[in-house]
Amino acid sequence: MPWLPSLITETPEDGFEVAIKLSRMAVKKTQPDDAARTRMRPDYANNADSLTMVSHVVAANFQTVAQANNYWSE
Amino acid sequence: MPWLPSLITETPEDGFEVAIKLSRMAVKKTQPDDAARTRMRPDYANNADSLTMVSHVVAANFQTVAQANNYWSE
Amino acid sequence: MPWLPSLITETPEDGFEVAIKLSRMAVKKTQPDDAARTRMRPDYANNADSLTMVSHVVAANFQTVAQANNYWSE
Amino acid sequence: MPWLPSLITETPEDGFEVAIKLSRMAVKKTQPDDAARTRMRPDYANNADSLTMVSHVVAANFQTVAQANNYWSE
Amino acid sequence: MPWLPSLITETPEDGFEVAIKLSRMAVKKTQPDDAARTRMRPDYANNADSLTMVSHVVAANFQTVAQANNYWSE
Amino acid sequence: MPWLPSLITETPEDGFEVAIKLSRMAVKKTQPDDAARTRMRPDYANNADSLTMVSHVVAANFQTVAQANNYWSE
Repeated sequence: MPWLPSLITETPEDGFEVAIKLSRMAVKKTQPDDAARTRMRPDYANNADSLTMVSHVVAANFQTVAQANNYWSE
Repeated sequence: MPWLPSLITETPEDGFEVAIKLSRMAVKKTQPDDAARTRMRPDYANNADSLTMVSHVVAANFQTVAQANNYWSE
Repeated sequence: MPWLPSLITETPEDGFEVAIKLSRMAVKKTQPDDAARTRMRPDYANNADSLTMVSHVVAANFQTVAQANNYWSE
Repeated sequence: MPWLPSLITETPEDGFEVAIKLSRMAVKKTQPDDAARTRMRPDYANNADSLTMVSHVVAANFQTVAQANNYWSE
Repeated sequence: MPWLPSLITETPEDGFEVAIKLSRMAVKKTQPDDAARTRMRPDYANNADSLTMVSHVVAANFQTVAQANNYWSE
Repeated sequence: MPWLPSLITETPEDGFEVAIKLSRMAVKKTQPDDAARTRMRPDYANNADSLTMVSHVVAANFQTVAQANNYWSE
């Protein structure tokens, strides 16, 4: 199964999850070693600026997903 | 209740609050430990650049929310 | 009175002021302590990169405000 | 005379100049002291990352100006 | 063959690959020396913030690619 | 001849070159001294994060150029 079958989701929350997945997938494709990524987790999970940076990436991807879904307006 | 039932708000100010919520939720989903996040609060709340970074994330999310609401123009 | 009654302004310059207000308000909502913010002012007001970061946030918010105003055309 | 009478320009190059002006004006409004800004100039003008950051802000503002001008297509 | 024949792709996943390619190509055009880029790989591949920065660039390019493809909606 | 006669290009690749030119021109207009810019080149050309930052600026400008060209779709 493709990891990104579609940008379309039922709800805004589901769209936010897609935005998070996109953010993580770009990291994974740059550093495919699972162990290396796991090792780095405490670095960003316990650093305020790192978390803000992560949130910024999610925001950028959520713009894309939200627009794809026409902002979930009917 | 979903944390993000809709991107649509009555007013620009309410939309700004949604943008803040989106910004924080991405952090929470990356670091779900409430105590860890609370511990980091002084780090960014007392650092000018950290606050600017937070404001940038809110700006990105506000772009999304404002567009979803057609900028609250009738 | 709401701090953000509308994104619509008469002129581009007024829109730029709204963009600045949005940028500052996100900081204020993250660090509501006026004294703390005042204390940090010299940190960013005398640092070139900090000012560039602030300008970036204003640019992001100005995108939103300018679009809301249809770029003040006609 | 207003510093930003309009986002509309004759040419893309003129639009780029407006983007630069917007970027600088946000700095000026955050640090209105001319002497302070002049003092900081060597800090960013001789630092590669600082210049890249400046270029990023100009890019963000140029998005706005270019869209306002419908990309100067007739 | 051109490295970027088109922004149009069959699927969102293929579009994400184009976004990654765009991100890398800008690096390559700034630092064309393959050996130099290879030497730097451990620097960013093992640093959480560096990877987040990379992910942010991919997100920006994915916005472009996704819009080019009308979000892969029919 | 103007350095930016138009945002319109024949192909996506040519558009990417315009995005790179825009990114560099903002640097040049901030630091017009050619020797100074040349001196800084090793600083960013051999630093992974600096190159990622450059790539981010190109991505932002490519958004503008791609939209100007309606993504090169006929």
